[in-house]
Amino acid sequence: MFKTNFTPGPSQLYVTTEDHARKAFKELIPSLSHRSRQFEEISRSATEGLRTLLNIPGDFSIVFTGSATEIWERIIQNLTEHTSHHLVNGAFSQKFYDTAVQLNRKATVTNADLGKGFSESVAIPSTELIALTHNETSTGVSLPLNVVSRIRETNPEALIAVDAVSSLPYPDFDFSQFDSVFFSVQKGFGLPAGLGVWIINQRCIAKAEQLLAKGISIGSYHTLPSLVSMAKKNQTPETPNVLGIYLLGKVVEDMNRRGIQTIRRETEYKAAILYQALDAHPLLKAFVTEPAVRSKTVVVADCGQHTEALTNHLMKKGMLPGDGYGTHKKTQLRFANFPAHSKEQYELLVDSIQEFNG
Amino acid sequence: MFKTNFTPGPSQLYVTTEDHARKAFKELIPSLSHRSRQFEEISRSATEGLRTLLNIPGDFSIVFTGSATEIWERIIQNLTEHTSHHLVNGAFSQKFYDTAVQLNRKATVTNADLGKGFSESVAIPSTELIALTHNETSTGVSLPLNVVSRIRETNPEALIAVDAVSSLPYPDFDFSQFDSVFFSVQKGFGLPAGLGVWIINQRCIAKAEQLLAKGISIGSYHTLPSLVSMAKKNQTPETPNVLGIYLLGKVVEDMNRRGIQTIRRETEYKAAILYQALDAHPLLKAFVTEPAVRSKTVVVADCGQHTEALTNHLMKKGMLPGDGYGTHKKTQLRFANFPAHSKEQYELLVDSIQEFNG
Repeated sequence: MFKTNFTPGPSQLYVTTEDHARKAFKELIPSLSHRSRQFEEISRSATEGLRTLLNIPGDFSIVFTGSATEIWERIIQNLTEHTSHHLVNGAFSQKFYDTAVQLNRKATVTNADLGKGFSESVAIPSTELIALTHNETSTGVSLPLNVVSRIRETNPEALIAVDAVSSLPYPDFDFSQFDSVFFSVQKGFGLPAGLGVWIINQRCIAKAEQLLAKGISIGSYHTLPSLVSMAKKNQTPETPNVLGIYLLGKVVEDMNRRGIQTIRRETEYKAAILYQALDAHPLLKAFVTEPAVRSKTVVVADCGQHTEALTNHLMKKGMLPGDGYGTHKKTQLRFANFPAHSKEQYELLVDSIQEFNG
Repeated sequence: MFKTNFTPGPSQLYVTTEDHARKAFKELIPSLSHRSRQFEEISRSATEGLRTLLNIPGDFSIVFTGSATEIWERIIQNLTEHTSHHLVNGAFSQKFYDTAVQLNRKATVTNADLGKGFSESVAIPSTELIALTHNETSTGVSLPLNVVSRIRETNPEALIAVDAVSSLPYPDFDFSQFDSVFFSVQKGFGLPAGLGVWIINQRCIAKAEQLLAKGISIGSYHTLPSLVSMAKKNQTPETPNVLGIYLLGKVVEDMNRRGIQTIRRETEYKAAILYQALDAHPLLKAFVTEPAVRSKTVVVADCGQHTEALTNHLMKKGMLPGDGYGTHKKTQLRFANFPAHSKEQYELLVDSIQEFNG
């Protein structure tokens, strides 16, 4: 049993999540009709709280799905007829691309090596949709926001969708630079899994309606027009994860009370001390070497032959690191740096890494 | 605030659900990696528990989705190339049909009036898939199992999918009579919403693989082959509603301990006393008149001008009835009769209805 879970998701629960869940059961929230006024208020509270926290403009809609994985599918179905282009530098950006292929789109790709990022000079072919991954959870590589802006500038016709699954609420996004962004709640929001959040602008809705008008199927209950028209009434097409939406609203309220600036500042502090410890360590190193693309929210350590020993060392102190991903399972560890991870927990983690000597 | 929720879903929580949820948080289940051994054990426990409870044969796979609404979509995507036929007698069987139309299938339909059912003589055209609704939640009409058997006998080539959303775990299904059955957990299982359960046989998997081999897209992460191959490892393609799967396993364990025969007997007793009270009442009547198609799990009362008064009468005693559906919202009430509703609660409901005099 551990005290602090550094796995990048499902991860450490936000400090208030359990209390909110207990209260939800007392108030019979899980038994509440999803067509009741009370549910509409819960849904409104979650979306308006997110709008404040992430500074989402009023012309963006916020809708709920079962997972971020579902949103990959809904994006390809609703926002493309033939083509999408993907920047791929790890397992999750690859899966976004795979989704497009499985849906029979002519998907194209620009690859970067694992641990490497993309720069402003990245060339994008003409396409309906550009699929970006803000934080590649498998490798700890982030996509700098100036690269997103540059892609927007050079590809004004394409829709841009950003996977921010393991970075939000940290990044201070300029929503004019893309058309769609999405995440799931079991990472940066410290909540139980089973809920995806999809944020879309009017261009996305217009594109989905265009496809529909052409007689192209864009799905059934979770088409963008269906999701958005229900969201206008603070409802969902299906019976949703009501408890999950309630908990999201409550935790977002707590985060708004704490202040997004504080959360950002603490995230940067925690990332800085961990990267510093890895850079200075005789046996370990940060997997991502280029400072500009080092993720602030998922820090990946190259531990080589010391991986198992470091895991045991941390576990003895009640800290659970995340395994390396895929081929790096035995040689890397991943450390989530989410709002649920306190400065004190990070300082203990860093102290423990510094004293580790194999 | 009510003590007993008779809404047909989300409905009354099973008596042990809240305790299991509290324990889940104590054991850090919501923060558990979905790729861990511990999750695989949770998933295995839920599916094997269901297999015992519902007597599901070993050659059927059990997989998880976000909702039963999602399963309508996955069934049409994975089990049909061109055609499906639907028996429609209410809002939910209609939505199953609508899903097929939205996915550009040539869907056909046999209609019955609201409150009416289907008999053995129902004619089905040649089709790839026959979509049946075992319990039409909007009207309280059930599809007798001998009708399902007769449809199987006369249409051996078609796949048969049965929506059992608001009837399971009550019905004693003979799984040789259909190919797929599905439900969501917020009705008969007394759990928080946000999880669908899809049970499929080998014919379904073979059909999905056939479509895939023809180059037809059957979805991405939730194609039947993807769901089934992950389920073999007690895993899911995406990060699922881990807490929901945990709670399902625990409540199913409790139901197995109580015994499915007891649950069925109690369901029949509770349905019998409520129908009896409605049949004998001077101001109220059962909406479904034909005994053979009266649902045991969702009882619909025609209350006409007395609807609001009866609602207030019941609410004063801590009982929340479900509204009538759609056009019947102001003139009917619906009463879920799930395992979470005790005999004592039903006896109190029936007494209160008997004493109601407008």
